[in-house]
Amino acid sequence: MSTTQQVPTLSAEEISIHPPKRLLFGPGPTQVHPRVYQAMAQPIVGHLDPYFFEISHDNQRMLRHVFGTQNECTFVVSATGSGGMETAITNLVEPGTKVAVFANGYFCDRMTDMAKRNGAEVVRFEKPWGEAFTDVEAAEFIHREKPKVVMYVAAETSTGVFQRGDAICAAAHEVGALVIADCVTSLGAMPVNVDKTGIDIAYSCTQKGLSCPPGLSPITVSPRALEWLNARKTPVRSWYFDIKLISDYLYVSKRYHHTASATMFYGLHEALTLIDEEGVAHRWERHRQAHRDFVKGAEAMGLKMLVPEELRIWNLNTPLVPEGVDDAKVRLALVRDHGIEIAGGFGPLAGKVFRIGIMGPLATRDHVEDFLAKFGEALHSAGYNG
Amino acid sequence: MSTTQQVPTLSAEEISIHPPKRLLFGPGPTQVHPRVYQAMAQPIVGHLDPYFFEISHDNQRMLRHVFGTQNECTFVVSATGSGGMETAITNLVEPGTKVAVFANGYFCDRMTDMAKRNGAEVVRFEKPWGEAFTDVEAAEFIHREKPKVVMYVAAETSTGVFQRGDAICAAAHEVGALVIADCVTSLGAMPVNVDKTGIDIAYSCTQKGLSCPPGLSPITVSPRALEWLNARKTPVRSWYFDIKLISDYLYVSKRYHHTASATMFYGLHEALTLIDEEGVAHRWERHRQAHRDFVKGAEAMGLKMLVPEELRIWNLNTPLVPEGVDDAKVRLALVRDHGIEIAGGFGPLAGKVFRIGIMGPLATRDHVEDFLAKFGEALHSAGYNG
Repeated sequence: MSTTQQVPTLSAEEISIHPPKRLLFGPGPTQVHPRVYQAMAQPIVGHLDPYFFEISHDNQRMLRHVFGTQNECTFVVSATGSGGMETAITNLVEPGTKVAVFANGYFCDRMTDMAKRNGAEVVRFEKPWGEAFTDVEAAEFIHREKPKVVMYVAAETSTGVFQRGDAICAAAHEVGALVIADCVTSLGAMPVNVDKTGIDIAYSCTQKGLSCPPGLSPITVSPRALEWLNARKTPVRSWYFDIKLISDYLYVSKRYHHTASATMFYGLHEALTLIDEEGVAHRWERHRQAHRDFVKGAEAMGLKMLVPEELRIWNLNTPLVPEGVDDAKVRLALVRDHGIEIAGGFGPLAGKVFRIGIMGPLATRDHVEDFLAKFGEALHSAGYNG
Repeated sequence: MSTTQQVPTLSAEEISIHPPKRLLFGPGPTQVHPRVYQAMAQPIVGHLDPYFFEISHDNQRMLRHVFGTQNECTFVVSATGSGGMETAITNLVEPGTKVAVFANGYFCDRMTDMAKRNGAEVVRFEKPWGEAFTDVEAAEFIHREKPKVVMYVAAETSTGVFQRGDAICAAAHEVGALVIADCVTSLGAMPVNVDKTGIDIAYSCTQKGLSCPPGLSPITVSPRALEWLNARKTPVRSWYFDIKLISDYLYVSKRYHHTASATMFYGLHEALTLIDEEGVAHRWERHRQAHRDFVKGAEAMGLKMLVPEELRIWNLNTPLVPEGVDDAKVRLALVRDHGIEIAGGFGPLAGKVFRIGIMGPLATRDHVEDFLAKFGEALHSAGYNG
């Protein structure tokens, strides 16, 4: 009794939503494929309907593929990416747990904040925004501090830096610690390799590399982390983000926990199906190529990148704002003249970098060339002479 | 530059979502109006886009109207209704806070669980599922216990009982306590009257009386509760659900907190616009009438209601399962033969009641009559002779 329905063809005047035209070249949310919107407009079923669990099960399977993991415990949290971060932290941290944070950007600070709210004793290895940690110094830090939980941001959205995780995970496991990795910006756009890297909990969002609207947070949990959860002495401080309760609902007993959104699950299903059809390796390569095209074009305009070549996230570029140029004027011109959204830097990088996301449907040579032409125009209108 | 777009007319075969046809007569999610789906299929904008804040601002305004409040601090949490419950509790409860719970159903137990995870000292006034608390006994309990926070469920989805809040709120304020009321099932379908009742934090969901897909939790916070938050000695245990951080993002400084979902905000906007167009008083009356029609029809079939007339929720009916009838067979027949979803009882009411939601687009005489005919058929096919 399958009855996929055409969205009723109501005229634009009949609804209250009239968004301005946008091309989303910011750090996220990113452009969404029309098929994803169409999927989200399909009639909902209940949160305990067999069809809901079928879609949820498919999502788990496709997410494992994109995460690069065999973890059975792979699902989506009914909250945005920051809800995934809180899920990871609130489940692994008990009062007094020693947590080591690799701190080189905005989201490491958010992790620190959340860990402290959960009663952690936090030690931080600090680096300036825009730098990464070498394998040797990462391992030394962990061996010296001997934490119980290690946290790092694999793809730091505030700086454009990709942090390798292999040495972090190896050292953490040597001292008996578990590793949480923030993959909010990388998942779906570049390899995350959860199992190969040795990450114990990785979480992400739907609105960046997966090219879906925001609203859910994919997460994957290693068997080692599940053992740890079973051995916790105190209850997880959050009921909503309790991994054991959520996974019991979504794929163990299928007993009610919360009312997950069929609409959001449909959208993610379509976005993951698009990735499956393209082939995940092909998709990653497409993002890498679009990134290279962007850098080449930006450098040809005389721009410099904040992050050294080997540390760059493929789908989030951070060119430096040229001397004497007001980045806000450039961003304003882009959105005013072309409906193009990009982001500026913040914190120590305020006014110093642009943050330009090239992902999902926009990660093609044509889109990059078109963007570069308009970006150049906007830079010149703001006084750039390069 | 407004460019509301028609959803591209992809054929059904081009997407991966093919839901079975369902008429949602359960306790939620409920049926969604086509205009809401159409709104959710509009292209997203960023979570810091002026258009996003415009929609968010409209939602705040329309939610105040439906909640019956002047509270400036009225917004939506980026999580389902249970996330709203956790938001209310984690913000008001500190370790050692004495919390009084009116416990007469499933969701009071969930509140208790969350309060304990936040370190509360919980005292409970217990009643069998299906009963309500009188004004006198409610006030006595609060005066005797002198808690700091009082929690009750205004419309208990597990039983169909509506709990009056006036005496609870008056007594709570007399002892200097704040009141949290769960309005998950009532908002949009019957009056909630936050200000008149004296509720300090009321939260709800989108997928019941508001007739939207699930995914967000509307919440409203009194100035008294905000003062309390400002005077907290310990940080709120949840970063994601921290009311001060979320409200700062959504309507104070508009600085980034999390990436709220334009899609979900669009859907809620359309659902609230539909309520505005109908007129909230008319909508409530429509639900009351549909409820009366249902009860009249059910009683004509020989069924009895669990809850006395004056304590019934208008949009969630709990007729008793007749002697000798297996409720699972009835539910199965409805979904198999007609795609109609209703729910059974659980906990102490497992096998004893049906839970039948009549809300949103389905709260009309025609839909109720059609439902009753099919419900009667299913009951008889399961051996009912009434």
